[in-house]
Amino acid sequence: MRAPASIANVGPGFDVFGLALRDPYDLITIERKAARGVKLRKVEGLGVEQVSTDPKRNTAVVAAAKVLELAGVDFGASISIKKGVRPCSGMGSSGASAAGGAFAANLLLDRPLPIDRLVFCAAKGEEASSGSFHADNVAPSMMGGFTIIRSYDPLDVVRVSPPKSLGVVATLPDIMVPTKQARAALPKSVGLQQMVHQIGNSSALAVGMATGDLALIGRSVRDIVIEPARESLVPHLREAERAALKAGALTSFLGGSGPCVAAFFDLDWSDGKGIAEAVQAVYSDNDIASTSWVTTWGEGSRRNAD
Amino acid sequence: MRAPASIANVGPGFDVFGLALRDPYDLITIERKAARGVKLRKVEGLGVEQVSTDPKRNTAVVAAAKVLELAGVDFGASISIKKGVRPCSGMGSSGASAAGGAFAANLLLDRPLPIDRLVFCAAKGEEASSGSFHADNVAPSMMGGFTIIRSYDPLDVVRVSPPKSLGVVATLPDIMVPTKQARAALPKSVGLQQMVHQIGNSSALAVGMATGDLALIGRSVRDIVIEPARESLVPHLREAERAALKAGALTSFLGGSGPCVAAFFDLDWSDGKGIAEAVQAVYSDNDIASTSWVTTWGEGSRRNAD
Repeated sequence: MRAPASIANVGPGFDVFGLALRDPYDLITIERKAARGVKLRKVEGLGVEQVSTDPKRNTAVVAAAKVLELAGVDFGASISIKKGVRPCSGMGSSGASAAGGAFAANLLLDRPLPIDRLVFCAAKGEEASSGSFHADNVAPSMMGGFTIIRSYDPLDVVRVSPPKSLGVVATLPDIMVPTKQARAALPKSVGLQQMVHQIGNSSALAVGMATGDLALIGRSVRDIVIEPARESLVPHLREAERAALKAGALTSFLGGSGPCVAAFFDLDWSDGKGIAEAVQAVYSDNDIASTSWVTTWGEGSRRNAD
Repeated sequence: MRAPASIANVGPGFDVFGLALRDPYDLITIERKAARGVKLRKVEGLGVEQVSTDPKRNTAVVAAAKVLELAGVDFGASISIKKGVRPCSGMGSSGASAAGGAFAANLLLDRPLPIDRLVFCAAKGEEASSGSFHADNVAPSMMGGFTIIRSYDPLDVVRVSPPKSLGVVATLPDIMVPTKQARAALPKSVGLQQMVHQIGNSSALAVGMATGDLALIGRSVRDIVIEPARESLVPHLREAERAALKAGALTSFLGGSGPCVAAFFDLDWSDGKGIAEAVQAVYSDNDIASTSWVTTWGEGSRRNAD
């Protein structure tokens, strides 16, 4: 089955917002095995050298094992992963595999778990790889659309269907942003007025997603806390964002902890290609290769046939 | 015309969220005068001794004067106010007068200002009284429904229509919470994880308002930053909130900077009277008089006939 990439953070929604993409995605295959436990059969595709094959650290395996454990079944499984999302991209690569692992394991059950349980299991998979419990990538990879982590304890995810005409350009420059460094760059505290700013914009962004107001979405992706703190880790970020806006994007921002440069556009007005070209030109002018996906928001994990 | 009371802050949306109430409201009367400038003719009603009659400090007069100034007209006006909202209540009393003053002055114009300009003028009126530029009460008093201040500079307000069945119980105990003290109790900074919590809940609350999800609204009114800091200024607050929940409220919280204790309920399941009685009983048991309004969210400023 397919587990889509996702863009977390999304402007002011650090650790809260995530958006599923239609492309790219990981492909996960699962086979039921008589012996308990989940094994990793094969990992192939993009950036496999960075994917842990340790069953205690591989996000898909841990997530699948958690599903089988919660279901209390007496069988196991074997998983194969084909990565369509490069690790350390800011596009939810480990989250996609985690969501896919949980979703695939669920297909083996006579009494499937509800989707919020699957998100929890996938977040456990993420935790095994990153060391911290985050759901802002696994939630959209599992549920699709735009997701809000209302609460982490207990985990409570709100899913919103974004407007149909919301296009996304995700550009991945050939740069590595170590997640640890991206975390270390974060401020420990924020001023009260900064919080007010983030709350105003994140609430307005969520309403824009829920009511299909692209203009509101465009002007609400404003983050004065997280992205400024990480800006120096992603060369040419501001330049790339400016290029996207100049080429007609509604807004442009750092995807996840980077280096993905994300841009939203209106599918009724643009095909997004010019935005992708403009962002890629910023990197090629600086002798940095990049890949762009011109896509839209997408559905969550699903069987290939669906 | 009428300018309704409002409840600002609303859970995690400090300085951002506001909700217009159907009751109570201020009544404002305006008369065009040949001489420039806006005069205060009369103030009557609840708590008038706390309403400034200084034309440079009265929120209705300052807001009305700002409207006439922006419109560039060569006439003036005289205003009368009948307070239905007690000052220092946490129910947007000065904001209601400010919104009413701006709305009334606009009725005198051949070419009325757009509503976002009126909100700006009303916020200027608030500023004259409180010393700081806030729009989270004047915005709902002007526009009605649930409002989000996305940005203060430039001022950008997003209006959302809450669900029809959203009932509100606003209980005002006979306690004074000086606004200055309420401001002084605020933390200067918040931890990053606290911010994440507030953003998750405020975004979810905004989505609940926009999509008519009362259960989501109920569980998203969670504020771990502002209300805890102010709790000690409002005697019996937690007790009153617990009583409201026990009587069937979806959620209960400090209205504005208090002492208003607000509760939301589902009009399809309750008439709200039991909630009001339960909250009032907490105060009467402690020999504190109180007034309750069992009402709903309301429209913004409007002519009496509308």
